[in-house]
Amino acid sequence: MNRSPIGIFDSGIGGLTVARAIFEQLPGESTIYFGDTARVPYGPKSAETVRRYSLEILRWLLDQRVKAVVIACNTSTAHALETLQAESPVPVIGVIEPGAAAAAAVGGERPIGVIGTAGTIASGAYAKAIRRTVPDARVEQRACPLFVPLVEEGWFEHPAADLIAREYLGPLAAAGVGALVLGCTHYPLLKPLLQRVMGPGVRLIDSGEETARVVASALRERSLQAPEGAPATHRFAVSDDEARFRQVGVRFIGDRLARAEVVPLA
Amino acid sequence: MNRSPIGIFDSGIGGLTVARAIFEQLPGESTIYFGDTARVPYGPKSAETVRRYSLEILRWLLDQRVKAVVIACNTSTAHALETLQAESPVPVIGVIEPGAAAAAAVGGERPIGVIGTAGTIASGAYAKAIRRTVPDARVEQRACPLFVPLVEEGWFEHPAADLIAREYLGPLAAAGVGALVLGCTHYPLLKPLLQRVMGPGVRLIDSGEETARVVASALRERSLQAPEGAPATHRFAVSDDEARFRQVGVRFIGDRLARAEVVPLA
Repeated sequence: MNRSPIGIFDSGIGGLTVARAIFEQLPGESTIYFGDTARVPYGPKSAETVRRYSLEILRWLLDQRVKAVVIACNTSTAHALETLQAESPVPVIGVIEPGAAAAAAVGGERPIGVIGTAGTIASGAYAKAIRRTVPDARVEQRACPLFVPLVEEGWFEHPAADLIAREYLGPLAAAGVGALVLGCTHYPLLKPLLQRVMGPGVRLIDSGEETARVVASALRERSLQAPEGAPATHRFAVSDDEARFRQVGVRFIGDRLARAEVVPLA
Repeated sequence: MNRSPIGIFDSGIGGLTVARAIFEQLPGESTIYFGDTARVPYGPKSAETVRRYSLEILRWLLDQRVKAVVIACNTSTAHALETLQAESPVPVIGVIEPGAAAAAAVGGERPIGVIGTAGTIASGAYAKAIRRTVPDARVEQRACPLFVPLVEEGWFEHPAADLIAREYLGPLAAAGVGALVLGCTHYPLLKPLLQRVMGPGVRLIDSGEETARVVASALRERSLQAPEGAPATHRFAVSDDEARFRQVGVRFIGDRLARAEVVPLA
Protein backbone atom coordinates (compact mmCIF):
# COMPACT_ATOMS: atom_id res chain seq x y z
CA MET A 1 0.00 0.00 0.00
CA ASN A 2 1.29 3.42 -0.90
CA ARG A 3 -0.53 6.73 -0.81
CA SER A 4 2.05 8.57 -2.92
CA PRO A 5 0.77 10.06 -6.16
CA ILE A 6 1.29 8.80 -9.68
CA GLY A 7 3.24 11.28 -11.81
CA ILE A 8 1.85 11.87 -15.31
CA PHE A 9 3.49 14.12 -17.85
CA ASP A 10 3.00 15.35 -21.37
CA SER A 11 4.45 18.05 -23.60
CA GLY A 12 1.22 19.95 -23.00
CA ILE A 13 -2.44 19.29 -22.60
CA GLY A 14 -3.14 16.10 -24.55
CA GLY A 15 -1.92 13.83 -21.77
CA LEU A 16 -5.04 14.80 -19.84
CA THR A 17 -6.87 12.04 -21.76
CA VAL A 18 -4.44 9.60 -20.15
CA ALA A 19 -4.99 11.24 -16.77
CA ARG A 20 -8.74 10.89 -17.32
CA ALA A 21 -8.40 7.19 -18.03
CA ILE A 22 -6.35 6.81 -14.82
CA PHE A 23 -8.94 8.76 -12.80
CA GLU A 24 -11.65 6.45 -14.12
CA GLN A 25 -9.85 3.14 -13.77
CA LEU A 26 -7.99 3.96 -10.53
CA PRO A 27 -10.31 6.28 -8.61
CA GLY A 28 -8.38 5.87 -5.33
CA GLU A 29 -5.04 7.00 -6.76
CA SER A 30 -3.71 10.52 -6.34
CA THR A 31 -1.93 12.07 -9.31
CA ILE A 32 0.36 14.94 -10.25
CA TYR A 33 0.10 16.03 -13.87
CA PHE A 34 2.87 18.04 -15.47
CA GLY A 35 2.26 19.72 -18.85
CA ASP A 36 5.35 21.23 -20.45
CA THR A 37 3.31 24.04 -22.00
CA ALA A 38 6.37 26.29 -22.32
CA ARG A 39 7.98 23.87 -24.74
CA VAL A 40 4.99 22.23 -26.44
CA PRO A 41 4.98 20.61 -28.97
CA TYR A 42 7.69 17.98 -28.69
CA GLY A 43 6.83 16.49 -32.10
CA PRO A 44 9.09 18.72 -34.22
CA LYS A 45 11.99 18.59 -31.74
CA SER A 46 15.00 16.32 -32.02
CA ALA A 47 15.20 13.08 -30.06
CA GLU A 48 18.02 14.48 -27.95
CA THR A 49 16.08 17.62 -27.02
CA VAL A 50 13.01 15.57 -26.12
CA ARG A 51 15.12 13.28 -23.92
CA ARG A 52 16.63 16.27 -22.12
CA TYR A 53 13.22 17.86 -21.47
CA SER A 54 11.75 14.52 -20.34
CA LEU A 55 14.60 13.97 -17.88
CA GLU A 56 14.02 17.42 -16.38
CA ILE A 57 10.36 16.58 -15.84
CA LEU A 58 11.20 13.15 -14.41
CA ARG A 59 13.45 14.80 -11.84
CA TRP A 60 10.76 17.30 -10.89
CA LEU A 61 8.18 14.52 -10.48
CA LEU A 62 10.61 12.47 -8.37
CA ASP A 63 11.11 15.54 -6.17
CA GLN A 64 7.33 15.44 -5.63
CA ARG A 65 7.78 11.82 -4.38
CA VAL A 66 5.72 10.03 -7.00
CA LYS A 67 5.52 6.24 -6.81
CA ALA A 68 5.32 5.72 -10.57
CA VAL A 69 5.65 7.86 -13.70
CA VAL A 70 3.41 7.73 -16.76
CA ILE A 71 4.78 9.30 -19.94
CA ALA A 72 1.45 10.47 -21.35
CA CYS A 73 3.13 11.78 -24.49
CA ASN A 74 3.80 9.75 -27.59
CA THR A 75 6.86 11.73 -28.69
CA SER A 76 8.49 11.53 -25.29
CA THR A 77 7.70 7.81 -25.05
CA ALA A 78 9.24 7.21 -28.48
CA HIS A 79 12.45 9.05 -27.67
CA ALA A 80 12.88 8.94 -23.89
CA LEU A 81 11.17 5.87 -22.37
CA GLU A 82 14.31 3.75 -22.08
CA THR A 83 16.41 6.65 -20.77
CA LEU A 84 13.83 7.46 -18.12
CA GLN A 85 13.43 3.82 -17.12
CA ALA A 86 17.21 3.60 -16.68
CA GLU A 87 17.31 6.78 -14.58
CA SER A 88 14.21 6.32 -12.45
CA PRO A 89 14.00 4.48 -9.11
CA VAL A 90 10.22 4.11 -9.63
CA PRO A 91 8.43 2.37 -12.52
CA VAL A 92 8.09 4.39 -15.73
CA ILE A 93 5.28 3.48 -18.14
CA GLY A 94 4.99 4.85 -21.65
CA VAL A 95 1.89 5.30 -23.75
CA ILE A 96 3.00 3.41 -26.86
CA GLU A 97 3.54 -0.19 -25.73
CA PRO A 98 0.05 -0.56 -24.17
CA GLY A 99 -1.69 0.76 -27.30
CA ALA A 100 0.46 -1.37 -29.57
CA ALA A 101 -0.17 -4.50 -27.49
CA ALA A 102 -3.93 -3.92 -27.58
CA ALA A 103 -3.81 -3.46 -31.35
CA ALA A 104 -1.70 -6.58 -31.82
CA ALA A 105 -4.23 -8.52 -29.70
CA VAL A 106 -7.11 -7.64 -32.07
CA GLY A 107 -5.68 -10.34 -34.28
CA GLY A 108 -6.98 -11.61 -37.58
CA GLU A 109 -5.60 -11.07 -41.05
CA ARG A 110 -6.42 -7.39 -41.36
CA PRO A 111 -3.70 -4.75 -41.18
CA ILE A 112 -3.42 -2.46 -38.17
CA GLY A 113 -3.84 1.28 -38.65
CA VAL A 114 -1.87 3.83 -36.65
CA ILE A 115 -2.50 7.57 -36.64
CA GLY A 116 -0.51 10.21 -34.78
CA THR A 117 1.39 13.45 -35.13
CA ALA A 118 4.04 13.79 -37.81
CA GLY A 119 6.77 13.13 -35.23
CA THR A 120 5.19 9.99 -33.80
CA ILE A 121 4.52 8.52 -37.23
CA ALA A 122 8.01 9.36 -38.49
CA SER A 123 9.49 7.61 -35.46
CA GLY A 124 7.73 4.37 -36.45
CA ALA A 125 7.46 3.65 -32.72
CA TYR A 126 4.00 2.05 -32.85
CA ALA A 127 4.86 -0.11 -35.86
CA LYS A 128 7.98 -1.36 -34.09
CA ALA A 129 6.07 -2.03 -30.87
CA ILE A 130 3.31 -3.90 -32.74
CA ARG A 131 5.90 -6.03 -34.57
CA ARG A 132 7.55 -6.99 -31.30
CA THR A 133 4.31 -8.93 -30.59
CA VAL A 134 3.27 -9.86 -34.15
CA PRO A 135 6.47 -9.83 -36.23
CA ASP A 136 4.72 -10.01 -39.60
CA ALA A 137 1.92 -7.55 -38.75
CA ARG A 138 0.95 -5.25 -41.61
CA VAL A 139 0.87 -1.72 -40.24
CA GLU A 140 -0.64 1.20 -42.16
CA GLN A 141 0.41 4.57 -40.73
CA ARG A 142 -0.76 8.11 -41.32
CA ALA A 143 0.26 11.41 -39.76
CA CYS A 144 -2.76 13.65 -39.01
CA PRO A 145 -1.34 17.05 -38.04
CA LEU A 146 -4.69 18.86 -38.26
CA PHE A 147 -6.38 16.73 -35.60
CA VAL A 148 -4.66 18.41 -32.65
CA PRO A 149 -5.76 21.96 -33.55
CA LEU A 150 -9.26 20.65 -34.41
CA VAL A 151 -9.50 19.18 -30.91
CA GLU A 152 -8.14 22.35 -29.31
CA GLU A 153 -10.77 24.36 -31.23
CA GLY A 154 -13.43 21.96 -29.94
CA TRP A 155 -14.57 21.24 -33.53
CA PHE A 156 -15.25 17.56 -32.83
CA GLU A 157 -18.19 17.40 -35.23
CA HIS A 158 -17.54 20.33 -37.57
CA PRO A 159 -18.05 19.54 -41.30
CA ALA A 160 -14.39 20.47 -41.82
CA ALA A 161 -13.38 17.87 -39.21
CA ASP A 162 -15.36 15.31 -41.18
CA LEU A 163 -13.64 16.23 -44.47
CA ILE A 164 -10.21 16.21 -42.82
CA ALA A 165 -10.86 12.84 -41.16
CA ARG A 166 -11.99 11.36 -44.50
CA GLU A 167 -8.84 12.70 -46.19
CA TYR A 168 -6.54 11.26 -43.53
CA LEU A 169 -8.36 7.99 -42.86
CA GLY A 170 -9.57 7.17 -46.37
CA PRO A 171 -6.42 5.22 -47.27
CA LEU A 172 -6.54 3.31 -43.96
CA ALA A 173 -10.19 2.39 -44.43
CA ALA A 174 -9.44 1.34 -48.02
CA ALA A 175 -6.58 -0.85 -46.76
CA GLY A 176 -9.15 -2.67 -44.61
CA VAL A 177 -7.54 -2.12 -41.22
CA GLY A 178 -9.19 -4.06 -38.39
CA ALA A 179 -7.95 -1.82 -35.59
CA LEU A 180 -6.94 1.82 -35.52
CA VAL A 181 -4.52 2.98 -32.86
CA LEU A 182 -5.14 6.57 -31.76
CA GLY A 183 -1.44 7.30 -31.37
CA CYS A 184 -1.84 10.85 -30.08
CA THR A 185 -3.33 11.78 -26.74
CA HIS A 186 -5.60 14.42 -28.29
CA TYR A 187 -7.38 11.98 -30.57
CA PRO A 188 -9.73 10.25 -28.08
CA LEU A 189 -11.85 13.42 -28.17
CA LEU A 190 -12.49 12.70 -31.87
CA LYS A 191 -13.58 9.09 -31.25
CA PRO A 192 -17.22 9.38 -32.43
CA LEU A 193 -16.10 11.08 -35.66
CA LEU A 194 -13.26 8.63 -36.29
CA GLN A 195 -15.51 5.62 -35.61
CA ARG A 196 -18.08 6.96 -38.07
CA VAL A 197 -15.45 7.54 -40.75
CA MET A 198 -13.82 4.14 -40.26
CA GLY A 199 -17.12 2.25 -39.91
CA PRO A 200 -18.37 0.01 -37.11
CA GLY A 201 -16.13 -2.95 -38.03
CA VAL A 202 -12.93 -1.19 -36.99
CA ARG A 203 -11.82 -1.23 -33.36
CA LEU A 204 -10.44 2.10 -32.15
CA ILE A 205 -7.59 1.65 -29.68
CA ASP A 206 -7.35 4.46 -27.12
CA SER A 207 -3.73 4.42 -25.93
CA GLY A 208 -4.69 6.29 -22.76
CA GLU A 209 -7.18 3.63 -21.67
CA GLU A 210 -4.72 0.86 -22.44
CA THR A 211 -1.98 2.69 -20.54
CA ALA A 212 -4.23 3.08 -17.48
CA ARG A 213 -4.75 -0.70 -17.51
CA VAL A 214 -0.98 -1.27 -17.56
CA VAL A 215 -0.50 1.24 -14.73
CA ALA A 216 -3.10 -0.61 -12.65
CA SER A 217 -1.32 -3.92 -13.03
CA ALA A 218 2.13 -2.39 -12.48
CA LEU A 219 0.95 -0.96 -9.13
CA ARG A 220 -0.71 -4.25 -8.19
CA GLU A 221 2.37 -6.32 -8.99
CA ARG A 222 4.54 -4.09 -6.80
CA SER A 223 1.91 -3.62 -4.05
CA LEU A 224 2.01 0.11 -4.67
CA GLN A 225 -1.77 0.71 -4.77
CA ALA A 226 -3.38 3.35 -2.61
CA PRO A 227 -5.38 1.90 0.30
CA GLU A 228 -8.99 1.18 -0.64
CA GLY A 229 -11.27 4.18 -0.14
CA ALA A 230 -8.34 6.57 0.23
CA PRO A 231 -9.23 10.15 -0.74
CA ALA A 232 -7.49 10.89 -4.04
CA THR A 233 -6.06 14.33 -4.77
CA HIS A 234 -5.12 15.63 -8.21
CA ARG A 235 -2.44 18.27 -8.67
CA PHE A 236 -1.65 19.99 -11.95
CA ALA A 237 1.48 21.85 -12.95
CA VAL A 238 2.53 23.52 -16.18
CA SER A 239 5.69 25.23 -17.33
CA ASP A 240 3.83 28.24 -18.82
CA ASP A 241 0.45 29.83 -19.63
CA GLU A 242 -1.77 28.40 -16.95
CA ALA A 243 -4.83 30.26 -18.26
CA ARG A 244 -4.80 28.56 -21.64
CA PHE A 245 -4.09 25.17 -20.05
CA ARG A 246 -7.26 25.45 -18.00
CA GLN A 247 -9.32 26.89 -20.83
CA VAL A 248 -8.51 24.04 -23.23
CA GLY A 249 -8.01 21.39 -20.53
CA VAL A 250 -11.63 21.63 -19.45
CA ARG A 251 -12.55 19.98 -22.78
CA PHE A 252 -10.40 17.04 -21.77
CA ILE A 253 -11.36 16.37 -18.16
CA GLY A 254 -14.11 18.82 -17.27
CA ASP A 255 -14.26 20.22 -13.77
CA ARG A 256 -11.72 17.77 -12.41
CA LEU A 257 -9.18 20.24 -13.78
CA ALA A 258 -8.00 22.39 -10.89
CA ARG A 259 -5.83 25.48 -11.03
CA ALA A 260 -2.31 24.49 -12.08
CA GLU A 261 0.93 25.56 -10.46
CA VAL A 262 3.42 27.17 -12.82
CA VAL A 263 6.81 25.46 -12.64
CA PRO A 264 9.23 26.91 -15.20
CA LEU A 265 11.78 24.19 -15.88
CA ALA A 266 13.97 25.71 -18.57
CA MET B 1 26.55 51.65 -48.20
CA ASN B 2 26.82 48.52 -46.13
CA ARG B 3 27.22 44.92 -47.27
CA SER B 4 26.32 43.42 -43.90
CA PRO B 5 23.30 41.13 -43.88
CA ILE B 6 19.82 41.85 -42.56
CA GLY B 7 18.90 39.55 -39.67
CA ILE B 8 15.41 38.07 -39.82
CA PHE B 9 13.95 35.86 -37.13
CA ASP B 10 10.81 33.97 -36.32
CA SER B 11 9.69 31.34 -33.83
CA GLY B 12 9.87 28.89 -36.71
CA ILE B 13 9.16 28.72 -40.38
CA GLY B 14 6.41 31.28 -41.01
CA GLY B 15 8.82 34.21 -41.10
CA LEU B 16 10.05 32.87 -44.43
CA THR B 17 7.15 34.76 -46.05
CA VAL B 18 8.72 37.95 -44.68
CA ALA B 19 12.14 36.82 -45.91
CA ARG B 20 10.59 36.19 -49.33
CA ALA B 21 9.16 39.70 -49.46
CA ILE B 22 12.60 41.09 -48.55
CA PHE B 23 14.29 38.96 -51.24
CA GLU B 24 11.83 40.30 -53.79
CA GLN B 25 11.86 43.96 -52.80
CA LEU B 26 15.57 44.17 -51.87
CA PRO B 27 17.31 41.75 -54.22
CA GLY B 28 20.76 43.15 -53.45
CA GLU B 29 20.55 42.61 -49.69
CA SER B 30 22.09 39.61 -47.96
CA THR B 31 20.12 38.01 -45.13
CA ILE B 32 20.47 35.66 -42.19
CA TYR B 33 17.26 33.93 -41.17
CA PHE B 34 16.93 32.37 -37.74
CA GLY B 35 13.99 30.03 -37.01
CA ASP B 36 13.62 29.03 -33.38
CA THR B 37 12.28 25.61 -34.33
CA ALA B 38 13.29 24.10 -30.98
CA ARG B 39 10.86 26.37 -29.16
CA VAL B 40 8.12 26.97 -31.75
CA PRO B 41 5.36 28.07 -31.28
CA TYR B 42 5.72 31.27 -29.27
CA GLY B 43 1.95 31.92 -29.33
CA PRO B 44 1.04 29.94 -26.19
CA LYS B 45 4.08 31.16 -24.23
CA SER B 46 4.07 33.99 -21.71
CA ALA B 47 5.23 37.48 -22.69
CA GLU B 48 8.25 37.14 -20.42
CA THR B 49 9.35 33.85 -21.97
CA VAL B 50 8.94 35.26 -25.48
CA ARG B 51 11.02 38.32 -24.55
CA ARG B 52 13.78 36.11 -23.14
CA TYR B 53 13.89 33.92 -26.27
CA SER B 54 13.79 36.97 -28.56
CA LEU B 55 16.72 38.58 -26.72
CA GLU B 56 18.78 35.39 -27.11
CA ILE B 57 18.14 35.44 -30.85
CA LEU B 58 18.91 39.17 -31.10
CA ARG B 59 22.29 38.55 -29.46
CA TRP B 60 23.07 35.71 -31.83
CA LEU B 61 22.14 37.84 -34.85
CA LEU B 62 24.27 40.73 -33.57
CA ASP B 63 27.18 38.28 -33.21
CA GLN B 64 26.71 37.61 -36.95
CA ARG B 65 27.17 41.39 -37.52
CA VAL B 66 23.77 42.16 -39.00
CA LYS B 67 23.02 45.78 -39.90
CA ALA B 68 19.30 45.57 -39.05
CA VAL B 69 16.96 43.07 -37.45
CA VAL B 70 13.48 42.13 -38.65
CA ILE B 71 11.21 40.42 -36.15
CA ALA B 72 9.30 38.28 -38.64
CA CYS B 73 7.08 36.87 -35.90
CA ASN B 74 3.87 38.45 -34.70
CA THR B 75 4.07 37.09 -31.16
CA SER B 76 7.64 38.23 -30.69
CA THR B 77 6.82 41.65 -32.14
CA ALA B 78 3.84 41.98 -29.78
CA HIS B 79 5.84 41.10 -26.68
CA ALA B 80 9.47 41.97 -27.42
CA LEU B 81 9.76 44.75 -30.02
CA GLU B 82 10.35 47.57 -27.52
CA THR B 83 12.77 45.53 -25.44
CA LEU B 84 14.79 44.59 -28.51
CA GLN B 85 14.79 48.16 -29.83
CA ALA B 86 16.13 49.31 -26.45
CA GLU B 87 18.87 46.65 -26.42
CA SER B 88 19.96 46.74 -30.04
CA PRO B 89 22.60 49.03 -31.56
CA VAL B 90 21.07 48.41 -35.01
CA PRO B 91 17.49 49.17 -36.15
CA VAL B 92 14.86 46.59 -35.15
CA ILE B 93 11.68 46.41 -37.23
CA GLY B 94 8.63 44.42 -36.20
CA VAL B 95 5.97 42.91 -38.41
CA ILE B 96 2.89 44.45 -36.77
CA GLU B 97 3.27 48.21 -37.22
CA PRO B 98 3.75 48.02 -41.02
CA GLY B 99 0.67 45.82 -41.51
CA ALA B 100 -1.40 47.97 -39.17
CA ALA B 101 -0.33 51.17 -40.94
CA ALA B 102 -1.23 49.74 -44.35
CA ALA B 103 -4.64 48.68 -43.03
CA ALA B 104 -5.26 52.08 -41.47
CA ALA B 105 -4.35 53.70 -44.81
CA VAL B 106 -7.09 51.79 -46.66
CA GLY B 107 -9.45 54.31 -45.11
CA GLY B 108 -13.16 54.67 -45.58
CA GLU B 109 -15.93 53.88 -43.17
CA ARG B 110 -15.63 50.12 -43.21
CA PRO B 111 -14.16 48.26 -40.24
CA ILE B 112 -10.71 46.64 -40.47
CA GLY B 113 -10.42 42.88 -40.04
CA VAL B 114 -7.45 41.24 -38.36
CA ILE B 115 -6.75 37.51 -38.30
CA GLY B 116 -3.90 35.74 -36.53
CA THR B 117 -2.99 33.02 -34.07
CA ALA B 118 -4.77 32.86 -30.71
CA GLY B 119 -1.81 34.56 -29.05
CA THR B 120 -1.57 37.45 -31.50
CA ILE B 121 -5.30 38.13 -31.37
CA ALA B 122 -5.42 37.92 -27.57
CA SER B 123 -2.57 40.44 -27.39
CA GLY B 124 -4.68 42.97 -29.31
CA ALA B 125 -1.42 44.25 -30.79
CA TYR B 126 -2.80 44.95 -34.28
CA ALA B 127 -5.89 46.72 -32.96
CA LYS B 128 -3.72 48.93 -30.77
CA ALA B 129 -1.33 49.70 -33.63
CA ILE B 130 -4.22 50.52 -36.01
CA ARG B 131 -5.76 52.83 -33.41
CA ARG B 132 -2.50 54.71 -33.01
CA THR B 133 -3.09 55.92 -36.59
CA VAL B 134 -6.91 55.95 -36.66
CA PRO B 135 -8.05 56.33 -33.04
CA ASP B 136 -11.71 55.51 -33.69
CA ALA B 137 -11.08 52.66 -36.15
CA ARG B 138 -13.47 49.74 -35.81
CA VAL B 139 -11.40 46.57 -35.68
CA GLU B 140 -12.91 43.09 -36.02
CA GLN B 141 -10.54 40.36 -34.89
CA ARG B 142 -10.57 36.60 -35.18
CA ALA B 143 -8.10 33.93 -34.12
CA CYS B 144 -7.65 31.23 -36.79
CA PRO B 145 -5.60 28.45 -35.16
CA LEU B 146 -6.24 25.92 -37.92
CA PHE B 147 -4.66 28.01 -40.66
CA VAL B 148 -1.06 27.31 -39.63
CA PRO B 149 -1.37 23.51 -39.78
CA LEU B 150 -3.37 23.81 -43.04
CA VAL B 151 -0.47 25.75 -44.55
CA GLU B 152 2.10 23.32 -43.20
CA GLU B 153 0.08 20.45 -44.75
CA GLY B 154 0.08 22.36 -48.05
CA TRP B 155 -3.75 22.16 -48.19
CA PHE B 156 -4.10 25.63 -49.67
CA GLU B 157 -7.16 24.71 -51.74
CA HIS B 158 -8.52 21.66 -49.94
CA PRO B 159 -12.32 21.64 -49.45
CA ALA B 160 -11.68 21.51 -45.70
CA ALA B 161 -9.57 24.67 -45.97
CA ASP B 162 -12.50 26.34 -47.70
CA LEU B 163 -14.95 25.30 -44.94
CA ILE B 164 -12.53 26.40 -42.22
CA ALA B 165 -11.91 29.75 -43.89
CA ARG B 166 -15.67 30.33 -44.22
CA GLU B 167 -16.17 29.50 -40.54
CA TYR B 168 -13.41 31.86 -39.41
CA LEU B 169 -13.99 34.68 -41.89
CA GLY B 170 -17.78 34.57 -42.13
CA PRO B 171 -18.29 37.03 -39.24
CA LEU B 172 -15.63 39.39 -40.67
CA ALA B 173 -17.21 39.33 -44.12
CA ALA B 174 -20.63 39.91 -42.53
CA ALA B 175 -19.22 42.88 -40.60
CA GLY B 176 -18.30 44.43 -43.96
CA VAL B 177 -14.57 44.83 -43.38
CA GLY B 178 -12.76 46.78 -46.11
CA ALA B 179 -9.29 45.41 -45.37
CA LEU B 180 -8.15 42.17 -43.80
CA VAL B 181 -4.75 42.08 -42.12
CA LEU B 182 -3.06 38.68 -42.41
CA GLY B 183 -1.59 38.91 -38.92
CA CYS B 184 0.34 35.66 -39.08
CA THR B 185 3.31 34.99 -41.30
CA HIS B 186 1.88 31.67 -42.50
CA TYR B 187 -1.28 33.20 -43.92
CA PRO B 188 0.07 34.73 -47.17
CA LEU B 189 0.17 31.19 -48.58
CA LEU B 190 -3.63 31.09 -48.21
CA LYS B 191 -4.16 34.41 -50.04
CA PRO B 192 -6.11 33.09 -53.06
CA LEU B 193 -8.47 31.16 -50.77
CA LEU B 194 -8.91 34.07 -48.34
CA GLN B 195 -9.53 36.53 -51.17
CA ARG B 196 -12.18 34.24 -52.62
CA VAL B 197 -13.92 33.83 -49.26
CA MET B 198 -13.82 37.56 -48.46
CA GLY B 199 -14.76 38.66 -51.98
CA PRO B 200 -12.95 40.97 -54.40
CA GLY B 201 -13.92 44.17 -52.53
CA VAL B 202 -11.73 43.40 -49.53
CA ARG B 203 -8.06 44.34 -49.57
CA LEU B 204 -5.79 41.68 -48.05
CA ILE B 205 -2.85 43.18 -46.18
CA ASP B 206 0.26 40.98 -46.24
CA SER B 207 2.27 42.08 -43.20
CA GLY B 208 5.45 40.62 -44.71
CA GLU B 209 5.23 42.76 -47.84
CA GLU B 210 4.49 45.86 -45.80
CA THR B 211 7.40 45.07 -43.47
CA ALA B 212 9.80 44.70 -46.41
CA ARG B 213 8.78 48.19 -47.57
CA VAL B 214 9.54 49.60 -44.11
CA VAL B 215 12.90 47.78 -44.06
CA ALA B 216 13.77 49.32 -47.44
CA SER B 217 13.10 52.85 -46.24
CA ALA B 218 14.85 52.28 -42.89
CA LEU B 219 18.01 51.20 -44.75
CA ARG B 220 17.72 54.11 -47.17
CA GLU B 221 17.29 56.69 -44.41
CA ARG B 222 20.38 55.44 -42.62
CA SER B 223 22.41 54.86 -45.84
CA LEU B 224 22.72 51.20 -44.91
CA GLN B 225 21.79 49.75 -48.31
CA ALA B 226 24.03 47.23 -50.01
CA PRO B 227 25.91 48.63 -53.01
CA GLU B 228 23.92 48.32 -56.23
CA GLY B 229 24.51 45.00 -58.00
CA ALA B 230 26.16 43.45 -54.95
CA PRO B 231 25.85 39.65 -54.89
CA ALA B 232 23.38 38.78 -52.13
CA THR B 233 23.84 35.70 -49.95
CA HIS B 234 21.17 34.07 -47.83
CA ARG B 235 22.03 32.10 -44.71
CA PHE B 236 19.54 30.07 -42.69
CA ALA B 237 19.82 28.84 -39.13
CA VAL B 238 17.42 26.93 -36.90
CA SER B 239 17.55 25.81 -33.29
CA ASP B 240 16.36 22.27 -34.06
CA ASP B 241 15.10 19.81 -36.71
CA GLU B 242 16.73 21.11 -39.83
CA ALA B 243 15.16 18.41 -42.00
CA ARG B 244 11.60 19.45 -41.26
CA PHE B 245 12.49 23.14 -41.66
CA ARG B 246 13.67 22.47 -45.18
CA GLN B 247 10.83 20.14 -46.03
CA VAL B 248 8.11 22.65 -45.06
CA GLY B 249 10.16 25.76 -45.86
CA VAL B 250 10.32 24.88 -49.53
CA ARG B 251 6.57 25.66 -49.69
CA PHE B 252 7.40 29.16 -48.48
CA ILE B 253 10.39 30.20 -50.56
CA GLY B 254 11.07 27.38 -53.00
CA ASP B 255 14.63 26.59 -53.92
CA ARG B 256 16.01 29.77 -52.38
CA LEU B 257 15.93 27.75 -49.17
CA ALA B 258 19.45 26.47 -48.54
CA ARG B 259 20.59 23.99 -45.93
CA ALA B 260 20.27 25.57 -42.48
CA GLU B 261 22.87 25.58 -39.74
CA VAL B 262 21.66 24.21 -36.41
CA VAL B 263 22.31 26.67 -33.58
CA PRO B 264 20.87 25.41 -30.30
CA LEU B 265 20.23 28.48 -28.16
CA ALA B 266 18.60 27.07 -25.03
